[in-house]
Amino acid sequence: MIDTPYIPFDTVFVVGGTHGNERTGVTLVQHWLLNPAEVQRQTFTTELLLGNPEAIQKNVRFIDRDLNRSFLSQYINGKTAETHESARAREIVANLQSGHTGKRTFAIDLHTTTAHMGITLITNTDPVNLAIAADVQKRLPGARIYCFADSDRINSCLRAAADGGIGVEIGPIPQGVVRHDILEITAGVVQEILDTLEAFNEGNYAPPDPDLPVYLHDRQMLYPITPAETAPFFIHQALEGRDYQPLAPGQPIFQDLNGQVICYEGGDTGYPVFINEAAYYYENIAFSLTRKMPLESLLATG
Amino acid sequence: MIDTPYIPFDTVFVVGGTHGNERTGVTLVQHWLLNPAEVQRQTFTTELLLGNPEAIQKNVRFIDRDLNRSFLSQYINGKTAETHESARAREIVANLQSGHTGKRTFAIDLHTTTAHMGITLITNTDPVNLAIAADVQKRLPGARIYCFADSDRINSCLRAAADGGIGVEIGPIPQGVVRHDILEITAGVVQEILDTLEAFNEGNYAPPDPDLPVYLHDRQMLYPITPAETAPFFIHQALEGRDYQPLAPGQPIFQDLNGQVICYEGGDTGYPVFINEAAYYYENIAFSLTRKMPLESLLATG
Repeated sequence: MIDTPYIPFDTVFVVGGTHGNERTGVTLVQHWLLNPAEVQRQTFTTELLLGNPEAIQKNVRFIDRDLNRSFLSQYINGKTAETHESARAREIVANLQSGHTGKRTFAIDLHTTTAHMGITLITNTDPVNLAIAADVQKRLPGARIYCFADSDRINSCLRAAADGGIGVEIGPIPQGVVRHDILEITAGVVQEILDTLEAFNEGNYAPPDPDLPVYLHDRQMLYPITPAETAPFFIHQALEGRDYQPLAPGQPIFQDLNGQVICYEGGDTGYPVFINEAAYYYENIAFSLTRKMPLESLLATG
Repeated sequence: MIDTPYIPFDTVFVVGGTHGNERTGVTLVQHWLLNPAEVQRQTFTTELLLGNPEAIQKNVRFIDRDLNRSFLSQYINGKTAETHESARAREIVANLQSGHTGKRTFAIDLHTTTAHMGITLITNTDPVNLAIAADVQKRLPGARIYCFADSDRINSCLRAAADGGIGVEIGPIPQGVVRHDILEITAGVVQEILDTLEAFNEGNYAPPDPDLPVYLHDRQMLYPITPAETAPFFIHQALEGRDYQPLAPGQPIFQDLNGQVICYEGGDTGYPVFINEAAYYYENIAFSLTRKMPLESLLATG
């Protein structure tokens, strides 16, 4: 059974522009700053936050390093070289973390992707976050839950600074672009999360379906190394756009313009996500692999 | 009648990465540098060129200013402040311009767009360029010809440094992304242009259809000005993705999240292109309007 402690949240942060070139969240937060009633509820206060204003102004993902990988204490506490983002992370922590505010906080962090991921709710394995994500998913049957086990990767995210949080990842949409449909979908997801948190705060909350499929992050898959100045491998046409579809051992994942094909050599079927995400090229990441499992087994192992 | 002087081209430049974050052309040029036979023909030499290597390395459109707006003599001749791109434009001119090389040159400049423009061939009103574009279009019936009248805008392009040239614009694809399908389409367009130039050089060349529709650039349409920190207007859902479809006076072009709608107030029907192009946000350009006309009337007025 899933044992969810019902401690209400006092403050919910809706964050846009943690990545400055993901304009959907920026636009929505700008809109809600002028129309705050749309995101207020009875049982908590909603705060609106632009994650990285300088990156937003420059329409880039980040200035020095990825803000959404900058929330480990080692960055915030000055044990590493100071960057624009470590300073910004420290400011955000001071405003968001319950240790500073005395409030129990929840962060909804709005992102977009160039991958065909539809509506994705990203969580850690905290049972409350998972239960809330599962309840949101009931309201949005097409949405998928992408979960990260406890790791530096997930603990370095902005929402890790709050007591609870969900990352909202919507795609595909190019970086630097605002589209009516992606705005509408993202705004709808935020409303459903706020309603779910309101119900959670009121104790009006059904236990999640233990059989709900959840996609647990397994590993990142890198593009094959090629010599400098050589045309790179790219995502194979049979994999392109097939986020969350099963990838069996032996299936093609990369191709090049000479007709070379590289196949997936993993031991068992994985479920790829973030296929061909533009923001990950600089780290040579082609896609991530997840394992699909029922929510219950994840909680048992989490 | 279209009077096309049949002076053969000696050298054809295939250029990728004039904009460093348009990876399709970069990838194809890298491939052809290793596989040059694929782009050689009998009657001319094919040269492969990476337009802006530093911007390519940083995966950005440009370093200081748009290279594809840097080929006016005022930039190259040092009458304006030196930029990374003015220096690079000077280098390219020295390699490409017939005044320096003694060769009659043609430039095929490879671009991508986030707009739904399919295959677009961009030309000036030079009768040879238009005739070649029209002949390419016969081989690629889905392709459209987007033409600019003589102006600083078109004369500042890289291909203006050559004796002839066509810009190839393929979309939609996000910036910073390589996709198998866009690679394949773009490579196919390059092959058709090379075959057309080969035929042109051989005098094996039919006059273009005078009734072929051509889209003549009319003007850029800007996003409405809104106060700072206000959620911006965006492309109206009825216009999004409808490049090359007629836009009649009174039809909606912008909307915001408060339900405000702004309609097209032009005097007659236009044909929008570059709708919601990511690269144009920094100049506040929402789309461009063209006028659709038969090739013959364009040559008569050009």
